[in-house]
Amino acid sequence: MTAQIEPFHAIAVSTLAHRLSAEAAKAGRPVIHMEFGQPSTSAPAAAIARAHHVLDTQAQGYWESAALKERIARHYHESAGVAVDPAQVVLTCGASPALVMALTLRFAPGARVAIARPGYVAYRNTLRALHMEPVELVCGPEERFNVTAAALAALEPAPDGLILASPANPTGTVIPPEELAAIAQVCHERGIAVISDEIYHGLTYDGARAQTLLTVDPEAVIVNSFSKYFSMPGWRLGWLVVPPALVDQARARMGNLFLTPPVLSQNAGLVAFDCCEELEGHVAAYARNRQLVLDALPALGLARIAPPDGAFYVWADIGHLTDDSMAFCLKLLEDTGVATAPGIDFDPVEGHRFFRISFAVSTAEVEDALARMKPWFAARMAEVAA
Amino acid sequence: MTAQIEPFHAIAVSTLAHRLSAEAAKAGRPVIHMEFGQPSTSAPAAAIARAHHVLDTQAQGYWESAALKERIARHYHESAGVAVDPAQVVLTCGASPALVMALTLRFAPGARVAIARPGYVAYRNTLRALHMEPVELVCGPEERFNVTAAALAALEPAPDGLILASPANPTGTVIPPEELAAIAQVCHERGIAVISDEIYHGLTYDGARAQTLLTVDPEAVIVNSFSKYFSMPGWRLGWLVVPPALVDQARARMGNLFLTPPVLSQNAGLVAFDCCEELEGHVAAYARNRQLVLDALPALGLARIAPPDGAFYVWADIGHLTDDSMAFCLKLLEDTGVATAPGIDFDPVEGHRFFRISFAVSTAEVEDALARMKPWFAARMAEVAA
Repeated sequence: MTAQIEPFHAIAVSTLAHRLSAEAAKAGRPVIHMEFGQPSTSAPAAAIARAHHVLDTQAQGYWESAALKERIARHYHESAGVAVDPAQVVLTCGASPALVMALTLRFAPGARVAIARPGYVAYRNTLRALHMEPVELVCGPEERFNVTAAALAALEPAPDGLILASPANPTGTVIPPEELAAIAQVCHERGIAVISDEIYHGLTYDGARAQTLLTVDPEAVIVNSFSKYFSMPGWRLGWLVVPPALVDQARARMGNLFLTPPVLSQNAGLVAFDCCEELEGHVAAYARNRQLVLDALPALGLARIAPPDGAFYVWADIGHLTDDSMAFCLKLLEDTGVATAPGIDFDPVEGHRFFRISFAVSTAEVEDALARMKPWFAARMAEVAA
Repeated sequence: MTAQIEPFHAIAVSTLAHRLSAEAAKAGRPVIHMEFGQPSTSAPAAAIARAHHVLDTQAQGYWESAALKERIARHYHESAGVAVDPAQVVLTCGASPALVMALTLRFAPGARVAIARPGYVAYRNTLRALHMEPVELVCGPEERFNVTAAALAALEPAPDGLILASPANPTGTVIPPEELAAIAQVCHERGIAVISDEIYHGLTYDGARAQTLLTVDPEAVIVNSFSKYFSMPGWRLGWLVVPPALVDQARARMGNLFLTPPVLSQNAGLVAFDCCEELEGHVAAYARNRQLVLDALPALGLARIAPPDGAFYVWADIGHLTDDSMAFCLKLLEDTGVATAPGIDFDPVEGHRFFRISFAVSTAEVEDALARMKPWFAARMAEVAA
């Protein structure tokens, strides 16, 4: 029996958003895309310039950049004091296939792998597609909406694995350093192999700081990508860091299952690593956007949110307004032109009463979106009160 | 127990080739790369121009090109008279992840999937990584080195699936139309689901013509890519055609396991579809290269080869010269600067006495390579005779 998996529901919202786009723009109220977790900014200018140069000078065969692997290894040393051999770095076509690789590298069909609920939709679905079993850890306000050492210690029987994400999607919540160390300790004691999705590293606010799991678990498999901090989602470039014992099998999987990442992206990604000023400018914009959203929450009547420590999301409880987040997001989009993601993508049990706002758009778009949302939410609250 | 899979051995040859490159070039005898199946030519000029334009004008988020899916669907209508709905087309980051998708879409762990031996190394390894069982069909001179209806009919018990490739890798052999229809008939009768790897379509010689399996099996899953005919391997763009009943699950897998292919590549690929003159020029060059290799075979003492109907390979028996194709290829490279692929990648049983030459390099390089190889092969033959 082949695996049956769920679609990514935000794609349905996005499809409607794109269908509404033309007439919405004509009516002077363009659709604002807050449904996907992707920067609206381009790759850094120097990275784009490098891509132009490569287009003009190279034939672009199958290739992996030794220089990029060295640069990524150096990044762990510089940012976290962790020694990573460039051979431990495997370049991938984004974080999604990196997760597929990581899962087939660590686990066999039937393996039980713990994930946070709410959590990124692809964790559950990719596990199922590979005939592994997602074990959902319910993460509510008491757990700061993310995995805790206590929850992992209490899980019986111990799972084979854990996918960790900090900052997390859809919540943005960061696991504090002492909790991360405690999680690593529980995993070590219980023999739980960890895959750490660190795709939102670099995007944290108000003093929160995401720490690579490698600082406390040298056996962890790390997933990362150029799609978020580096503002290069459509370039499809990501990486894995694997422990030395797994290097050969990781390389064999890359060579057989995926071959190589795009040549242009590898060249541009290497340059992007040194575009700090431009990239930190994006982070500063996200920080402004986040504050605008947080300041608007009372007027929207949204009182229960996950701690938005990082990433570019606000995960909010809308249970007082709806018990159908998909219908809610579609109606919000139709009425205001603001596209958001329904909670059912991230939490199949309680997601009907949550939605996710991405603030990775321009500050002007955030202001515009909030101005449209305020009267709409006020009207919904009045309806419910009536 | 996680799956243990083999590396791609040609990568070791290539690594040595690159290590020798600098001094070989200095000595006026540059390394000639005939070890991988990749064109040495660039993407079509108009496709590159389009990529420049997109780099300057778009932010490149997660995106799939509706226009490209329509163009691919139209291609099947125009080239084979087969109706394909654009919704049946799934765009991927190359043929390798397309195969991963196709396998998880059609089969579960434990499934028995038939493949030709010799055959492309990734079929066997990707099946194993997904905990499926490769069932090797021995394809020798009597079978024209490819799958036959008779071999499939005789296989007991019937396998769950079949990966078909015509033109095949490493042989280039094309399955004739009547044989293809007979294979489809056997698969239909025995309930064998077929994945057809059509990555070398467009590259055939001497009147051979590869026919899409869709003409005889509407339930087939088709794998194809821009890496060979379109000369865009490092752009990482491929596609699947899936039957209507599998569209939803295929899209769910793409959205969860892979997300989207590179934006630049999708834009460039659409343009490449209309660069017929430039691309047919490459095919004409391959035809010349192929003839040069075939004409040189007697001088090389290579009498037993697979029918090189298509692709850009010659698969030759070197059993009279060696019983260790890996050592043979490394020695050939060290002595002459010509890199080739050892047969052990493609045939774990008899590959020690075969090697594969790729002629997807320039005609001047083929001439140079043959001039270097002739005295080297003559010396080997003299050694063996002594």
